[in-house]
Amino acid sequence: MISTRVATRGTMASKRTSAQLLKSFNGLNTSSTIGLRPAFIVVKQIHPVSSQRNFSTTPAKPKVTEFFPQKETELVRKTEPAWPHPIYSYEQMEAVTVAHREAKTFSDKIALIAVKVLRWGLDVATGYKHDKAIALGEKDPAAADKKYGMTEEKYMIRNVFLESVAGVPGMVAGMLRHLHSMRRMKRDNGWIESLLEESFNERMHLLTFLKMQQPGLFMRAMVLGAQGVWFNALFFAYLISPRTVHRFVGYLEEEAVITYTRQIKDLDAGRLPKWQHLEAPQIAIDYWKMPEDKRSMRDLLLYIRADESKHREVNHTFGNLDQKNDPNPYNSEYKDPSRPHPTKDLVHQKPEGWERTDII
Amino acid sequence: MISTRVATRGTMASKRTSAQLLKSFNGLNTSSTIGLRPAFIVVKQIHPVSSQRNFSTTPAKPKVTEFFPQKETELVRKTEPAWPHPIYSYEQMEAVTVAHREAKTFSDKIALIAVKVLRWGLDVATGYKHDKAIALGEKDPAAADKKYGMTEEKYMIRNVFLESVAGVPGMVAGMLRHLHSMRRMKRDNGWIESLLEESFNERMHLLTFLKMQQPGLFMRAMVLGAQGVWFNALFFAYLISPRTVHRFVGYLEEEAVITYTRQIKDLDAGRLPKWQHLEAPQIAIDYWKMPEDKRSMRDLLLYIRADESKHREVNHTFGNLDQKNDPNPYNSEYKDPSRPHPTKDLVHQKPEGWERTDII
Ligand SMILES: [Fe+2]
Ligand SMILES: [Fe+2]
Ligand SMILES: [Fe+2]
Ligand SMILES: [Fe+2]
Repeated sequence: MISTRVATRGTMASKRTSAQLLKSFNGLNTSSTIGLRPAFIVVKQIHPVSSQRNFSTTPAKPKVTEFFPQKETELVRKTEPAWPHPIYSYEQMEAVTVAHREAKTFSDKIALIAVKVLRWGLDVATGYKHDKAIALGEKDPAAADKKYGMTEEKYMIRNVFLESVAGVPGMVAGMLRHLHSMRRMKRDNGWIESLLEESFNERMHLLTFLKMQQPGLFMRAMVLGAQGVWFNALFFAYLISPRTVHRFVGYLEEEAVITYTRQIKDLDAGRLPKWQHLEAPQIAIDYWKMPEDKRSMRDLLLYIRADESKHREVNHTFGNLDQKNDPNPYNSEYKDPSRPHPTKDLVHQKPEGWERTDII
Repeated sequence: MISTRVATRGTMASKRTSAQLLKSFNGLNTSSTIGLRPAFIVVKQIHPVSSQRNFSTTPAKPKVTEFFPQKETELVRKTEPAWPHPIYSYEQMEAVTVAHREAKTFSDKIALIAVKVLRWGLDVATGYKHDKAIALGEKDPAAADKKYGMTEEKYMIRNVFLESVAGVPGMVAGMLRHLHSMRRMKRDNGWIESLLEESFNERMHLLTFLKMQQPGLFMRAMVLGAQGVWFNALFFAYLISPRTVHRFVGYLEEEAVITYTRQIKDLDAGRLPKWQHLEAPQIAIDYWKMPEDKRSMRDLLLYIRADESKHREVNHTFGNLDQKNDPNPYNSEYKDPSRPHPTKDLVHQKPEGWERTDII
């Protein structure tokens, strides 16, 4: 694996891109003044695309620190993931689209407003102004890039933050349903599994991004602080109205699909050169069972976006169900299996969730 | 399934046992005066052994209320369990023994004392004085039975209570490790899975017992109250010392193995006639994949006891490991698979847990 990667790098490197990369790698002074200031960002790229080898006189090769090395002890080779990932085909992943479920009920509207507020807050904090950047970019690309440009680092930092909070709702909901089932002596009907699996999947997203870039102290402090508030907010919200929380997560995941779609678009448009030939880390290859010829950063983003679209569908569907009595449609055996029904993979995509009458 | 059961009952019933059963079924006035008073216990046996059909003039057939019916909706047939159960052989289950790991460190001793205190409290509350009962029983069986006898109902109520709290530690530990992994941006090394699986397995124990007997209002209130205190105690304890909590759960599970071993012994000694020909409910048959000729109450107790012995082993092992850096040995691939190592089934039984040096 290591040797392949090095070889690829060698052949890809050109003086021009290397120079660009080294500049942005060392400097980071091109990053926006809004939000995270460079001083707080410690960039330790694990897989620097292209290389410093063209500058053989420069010994300052960035230190490749393994953030959490694959645990191999004296006796243990490796540890398996908790839930094996379902297989996604390439066509299915490409078919994932941005979508929005209309907010119909009062509870839907509360959920949507909550997401909008959070989204706005995060955009301000991270200087993510994609639309404005595009608009200005059409007139003056250089100015736009300087003012609003999302760099690879900024996207990565944003992804790390989002994924670190994304693993909370599934765990909170799964835990509360587990406790409820025991306390009330009622069957759970299979919901817990999907919720915990979702939280695990989000944590795998986080660990994957962390393999590629380490956040700085500031971001780590943000994550630490955010988790406490976020966990408690979700805990109480889920006690009050689980349906609203599922809808809320559905809307959050709509945003996640938007974010990853933009990253893929930016990558395709050549705006993220460092990701052009970046390879997915081993943890991702193992988890998604990525085929040998599909292990680029772009492929990784496709997998992650597909996961988010699945969370979007699952949570919108859960938001449509009777929270106490309906079985988990993602974990059920159907009387007529030939009729389209919810599955863990991407066979039937329903971005706005399945309606209760179609599946229960 | 239903028809088989009815047929069996018919052939088994004898006037003598029927009369005995009906008495204890309706009356419950034989239960101990210590602890739960009859007024609080609503006994609704789902599978009354032997039958009321011999008393054709008695229309008071106990109402068989399904506590949580298998969810079958218009479209959904059934919902699968979150974690398929590993297969246990009959020999392996019979080989499960009562065991005790010596408390070596200060943390071990704290854990052991905590278990002893809880055990004493529960015994007082439920009037479970097995040893005294045996002692008196040797002199005066009738008096012993009246004073201390554990009836099927009392065992069942005790089991329901224990299982309703048993599902908490695994969930608390799994959740905290999940949050920790995201907050600290550290890999978990596979522990979460075993912890959540344990909590799910305990919940299946609970649901199985609930299929056989409904607890009364008093017990339900106990469970409700206990969960809040118990959850919080474990939450903070796990934050302070996860190692101590794992050891504590290891000792709790030692007690669980003792309890189920006693129930099996009592059953074999003919002290629990109502369980003699009782069949395991469908939920248990499905979950443990019980073979067709091994679906009695005794078999069920063997399966559950084996699960408890596994929790005992897992938690004692976890208590021996480096909480932050060691991989989960139950979820790992070994360099030398031929060497005995921890597994999810009962191939290698280590009641006192695996020592760190043997597996890491
Ligand atoms: Fe994610
Ligand atoms: Fe997500
Ligand atoms: Fe149990
Ligand atoms: Fe247990």
